Amino acid sequence: MSTVVNSTMQQHQTCIDACNKCVQACEECLSSCLKEPDVQARVNCINLLRDCIDICALSAQFMSRNSNYAKEICNLCATICDACATECAKFQDTHCKQCADECRKCADECRRMAA
Amino acid sequence: MSTVVNSTMQQHQTCIDACNKCVQACEECLSSCLKEPDVQARVNCINLLRDCIDICALSAQFMSRNSNYAKEICNLCATICDACATECAKFQDTHCKQCADECRKCADECRRMAA
Amino acid sequence: MSTVVNSTMQQHQTCIDACNKCVQACEECLSSCLKEPDVQARVNCINLLRDCIDICALSAQFMSRNSNYAKEICNLCATICDACATECAKFQDTHCKQCADECRKCADECRRMAA
Amino acid sequence: MSTVVNSTMQQHQTCIDACNKCVQACEECLSSCLKEPDVQARVNCINLLRDCIDICALSAQFMSRNSNYAKEICNLCATICDACATECAKFQDTHCKQCADECRKCADECRRMAA
Repeated sequence: MSTVVNSTMQQHQTCIDACNKCVQACEECLSSCLKEPDVQARVNCINLLRDCIDICALSAQFMSRNSNYAKEICNLCATICDACATECAKFQDTHCKQCADECRKCADECRRMAA
Repeated sequence: MSTVVNSTMQQHQTCIDACNKCVQACEECLSSCLKEPDVQARVNCINLLRDCIDICALSAQFMSRNSNYAKEICNLCATICDACATECAKFQDTHCKQCADECRKCADECRRMAA
Repeated sequence: MSTVVNSTMQQHQTCIDACNKCVQACEECLSSCLKEPDVQARVNCINLLRDCIDICALSAQFMSRNSNYAKEICNLCATICDACATECAKFQDTHCKQCADECRKCADECRRMAA
Repeated sequence: MSTVVNSTMQQHQTCIDACNKCVQACEECLSSCLKEPDVQARVNCINLLRDCIDICALSAQFMSRNSNYAKEICNLCATICDACATECAKFQDTHCKQCADECRKCADECRRMAA
């Protein structure tokens, strides 16, 4: 297999892994946000987490199946991950900080995929 | 509730229903395509059905939760439904004809939502 | 087509429709619960809604594709729908009452499917 | 944090990772099966792959959110992964062999989770 193909596959894998890590971080963060005393202040955050989980999970699947629409879905995924990262970054607890970090990494990888 | 709000909700509902019908038609069509003697000729069709199922299911959920990204996902959904309709329309059997029809209706509703 | 086949298909369709209606009711209810002043009291409810949405969406897809595991997933779906109905029924607002109603109908249809 | 909690979290993580790897292997295998000259012989395999992808993706999400139903869904996931492994193992190509291997690992982890 040529180096070009290998590096394309490697880029794919990095992005799939980032999406899967982001799904997990968002699910954990959503469960943890619901337990926080200021849950009322986290409604926007929780709503973004819902969308981020679903689009990241689907992006990982579209890339794994080598879909013709992998770039398009990664493009939308990057947008939602960015918004979710911005929202999570407003809160000081560990789960939101970690989730913001995974969302940012995932947004970067998805932008690279979509390019 | 005002007429404007009601008609927005009605439009939403019409699109959610179209997405759900499209998911079902695509799942049935994929199962039926796999049983056809010319399954080898249907590989593109099957791959489009996989994508169409997933994006329609997610679009219905984003609309139901009134997501900020409902328009964006409906926009991508319309693109994939169009491609799936074109591919299904190449085959003469009932399941492909019906699926092409549901995909076209869903694409139209999603474009209206995304507008 | 024989009456037996027709009634099986009809039963399938009734259950698919119940699952799709339940997904929508749960997504709407979750979005509405997050806006309520007593959101803190609704954490169990919200967590059950998350599970109920996902299992109902997948059950509809397994039935549509005529999966060998449609009965098994409908069986688990009935369990989760029942729990979600019980939790939603604790709250007095319209969205929770309606959601509890759809969850109960979906649980009944899923039990019939799984039988 | 106690050793018990840590080892529970570790077990969770191992199973989530196994589910994610299985989703990817199944998506890749399904795409590759569709390109094989004997696709007609692979219909059962393709249908099992469809179910396996969806249940593994959902199991990873239920575990990540620490759902009350994580054990139940992992139990069904193990059943479907076993069936998919058996079917994939019938074919000699690399993608089916690798997929059978990931399905078996995932089934084992899910059974441990469900215990």
